[in-house]
Amino acid sequence: MVSIEMIVAARARLRGHARRTPLLSSPFLDEIAGRRLFIKAECLQHTGSFKFRGGWSAVSALEPEVRARGVIAFSSGNHAQGVALAARLHGVPSVIIMPDDAPKLKISNTRALGAEVVLYDRAKEDRDAIGARLSEERRLTLIKPFDEPQVIAGQGTTGLEIAEQAEEEGVSSAEVLAPCGGGGLTSGIALALEARTPGFRVRPCEPEGFDDTTRSLASGRIERNATLSGSICDAIITPQPGNITFPILKRLAGPGIVVTDEEALRAMALAFTRLKIVVEPGGAVALAAALFHGEQLQEDAAIVVTSGGNVDDEMFARALALRG
Amino acid sequence: MVSIEMIVAARARLRGHARRTPLLSSPFLDEIAGRRLFIKAECLQHTGSFKFRGGWSAVSALEPEVRARGVIAFSSGNHAQGVALAARLHGVPSVIIMPDDAPKLKISNTRALGAEVVLYDRAKEDRDAIGARLSEERRLTLIKPFDEPQVIAGQGTTGLEIAEQAEEEGVSSAEVLAPCGGGGLTSGIALALEARTPGFRVRPCEPEGFDDTTRSLASGRIERNATLSGSICDAIITPQPGNITFPILKRLAGPGIVVTDEEALRAMALAFTRLKIVVEPGGAVALAAALFHGEQLQEDAAIVVTSGGNVDDEMFARALALRG
Repeated sequence: MVSIEMIVAARARLRGHARRTPLLSSPFLDEIAGRRLFIKAECLQHTGSFKFRGGWSAVSALEPEVRARGVIAFSSGNHAQGVALAARLHGVPSVIIMPDDAPKLKISNTRALGAEVVLYDRAKEDRDAIGARLSEERRLTLIKPFDEPQVIAGQGTTGLEIAEQAEEEGVSSAEVLAPCGGGGLTSGIALALEARTPGFRVRPCEPEGFDDTTRSLASGRIERNATLSGSICDAIITPQPGNITFPILKRLAGPGIVVTDEEALRAMALAFTRLKIVVEPGGAVALAAALFHGEQLQEDAAIVVTSGGNVDDEMFARALALRG
Repeated sequence: MVSIEMIVAARARLRGHARRTPLLSSPFLDEIAGRRLFIKAECLQHTGSFKFRGGWSAVSALEPEVRARGVIAFSSGNHAQGVALAARLHGVPSVIIMPDDAPKLKISNTRALGAEVVLYDRAKEDRDAIGARLSEERRLTLIKPFDEPQVIAGQGTTGLEIAEQAEEEGVSSAEVLAPCGGGGLTSGIALALEARTPGFRVRPCEPEGFDDTTRSLASGRIERNATLSGSICDAIITPQPGNITFPILKRLAGPGIVVTDEEALRAMALAFTRLKIVVEPGGAVALAAALFHGEQLQEDAAIVVTSGGNVDDEMFARALALRG
């Protein structure tokens, strides 16, 4: 359903629009991790996360007359910003449905990027029903956050870059650690690496208590999270792996790695000091896995995706304060 | 004394060792600045500042038997780390003379990068005398922080990348704003741009009270700072422009732009939120100039160098707290 050809085609559409983010490193992090680490800094992507890739891929793949009517998305924030900016740069309207407890910065950024933001109550309202009603009324095209082939193809362009950049660094064998919510990024990267560097295995990383993908990979079938609130890693909290993404992950990725919230915060602080990048909690779980759960890795090198950097001042200060 | 050929040769020596840092942007910053801004994120360079370029350039240019005896440098921190890592990667010893009030992080990083650190009292001791004595005793080669042709050539590689990246972005005319201490970075960039994109003028940026280069460019002769302490922009505080750098700046750069410490802190906070990069106060003065002194600029586009990111947690928290 998603092929390497779709990822290559997405990359052609993204050229000149998405950023080829750098692969960073630090001898200090290598020492903590006990192996060579290469950090794919997707927090430096437009809108502060990899989601711009999938948003641009999906919006640019639409037929012009369909695209002109506008797009709609539901998102806790990063997908929202990615779709909003992609729509604005295409000159078409966007409606974004967001939970009313999403970080203020993500809500205000999404509005500032030209989207109409519709807030809903995560506990009481059904976002799918709201989305279905609005898209029908206004004939908007729904851009799903992960279970959508063109979105996965867009995220997969991260994997094409990882394959190229690893070769530039002389890395011929590595595990690729990526934060995993619904699995759009991890499955897209897995497909790209299957075609380009088959020796690179993808390891999905998740926060404790929201390890649906790790458990699903272990049991071989889709498992749900018990709850959807209470994590600081808002960007990667989803009910369960996607129907399109999970079969890809089952075939190509895992086992998953689970980190604590405190480990994610410590990884944020180390990324600040050693890499000079800003990472949000959900975007830092793969770095936390590489730094603090190295015993679960096999290879001498790990490539770590820091997937987003949209974090409020207060949460960032909390990460820095942790090491006092 | 420093030619474009030396910069091109330095680039060849740096290839595969220094990072080609990305050119970042944000529609939110463009709106504040009232023009298109492109941020050359040298805080993402190895050791967290552009100084690694000059350090590598100078160490790699030495005759092997001279290099093998080791190198010595005096620096408030960023040049120290750049030289220390360049020496370590070349497998040769380094001695770094640092003021005892330098940020703790910079001192500990320099030690961790394998250098022998010698601390001195900024107010009471003469660092040049200490450096001369040590380099004579141990036959070490002194790597000056800015008034050294191979160091300027190394920093100038930043300018070669700016010229290429501006072309990739379709920018044909722009001012290039760079933080300016002794002038190694600004003069190196100015020489590179003179050869590659003659329409791009370099504008040195400095903190209030330490605007020696701005005043020197205005008067046409080297002016000194009244004091060397009391600024949060420690990375770019020098007594006066260099004897090699100033004639280059006088011919190719200016006028200078002066910003307050508070503006530098505000620029750090905006770089955090909008670019997801960590910038230190001295590294943020050019961004502050572009954001808050746009009336002093002429072109529709500005390329801004964020030259370093080696900032303590406390100072960074102060920048974030400023906007409360």
